[in-house]
Amino acid sequence: MVRMSLHQIVIHEHSDQQFIFLKEEGGKRRFPIVIGIFEATVIDRKVRNFKPPRPMTHDLLVNVIESLGGEVQHVVVNKLEDNTFYAKLVVRQDGRVVEIDSRPSDAIAVASHTKVPIYVEEQVLDEVARADEA
Amino acid sequence: MVRMSLHQIVIHEHSDQQFIFLKEEGGKRRFPIVIGIFEATVIDRKVRNFKPPRPMTHDLLVNVIESLGGEVQHVVVNKLEDNTFYAKLVVRQDGRVVEIDSRPSDAIAVASHTKVPIYVEEQVLDEVARADEA
Repeated sequence: MVRMSLHQIVIHEHSDQQFIFLKEEGGKRRFPIVIGIFEATVIDRKVRNFKPPRPMTHDLLVNVIESLGGEVQHVVVNKLEDNTFYAKLVVRQDGRVVEIDSRPSDAIAVASHTKVPIYVEEQVLDEVARADEA
Repeated sequence: MVRMSLHQIVIHEHSDQQFIFLKEEGGKRRFPIVIGIFEATVIDRKVRNFKPPRPMTHDLLVNVIESLGGEVQHVVVNKLEDNTFYAKLVVRQDGRVVEIDSRPSDAIAVASHTKVPIYVEEQVLDEVARADEA
């Protein structure tokens, strides 16, 4: 797995498709993930440390994990299929590891909230890098 | 606690404030809760059994609860303070009950997804009923 950082969030208010760019830490490879405007806004606010007056859905999500004895270890973008990225939340609970399927946008929102690492499977990064060169 | 059903979702696309109405089951009392457009859309889709191509954030939320050994028992709108409603998710895990603070919109989205009962504290319902008569 390759550790990535959330490099850029590009929001075009009049488009249905927003982009987040993940960039390899200590490297140059980067790639975009298309996400919705709501998800982009959530991530953007997390990155800016904007505190909404009330806990939002991703705050609740993290609170639920912690209330049930879990701790988010990291998130990983682990698959690319038909131009769609898939991700997982990796949660430790009572010494065992629980992996939960997630859209990348939710996973990255959770990572931005909990400050855990974002990883991408090497194979996925290779595929996307190839696609970029095409 | 009084059991309620989700009676109506009112979406005005050009307003920041949307409304959901909860109505007493087997009774006549009802009251509105102001929520955001995103939350209203999520609940509306759940009620219509609309299946998005990918699991959305509230699907992930329910999946997280179940993956960590929890089961949602019910949700309850338990407080009204400064015209703001507060709610809780009530989750059973390993024989214990875990209560997690939530916005009513998230709680009702979870209830619509898991088909668990929605309750309102009698005191809250009384307050709102009084407010309606004013």
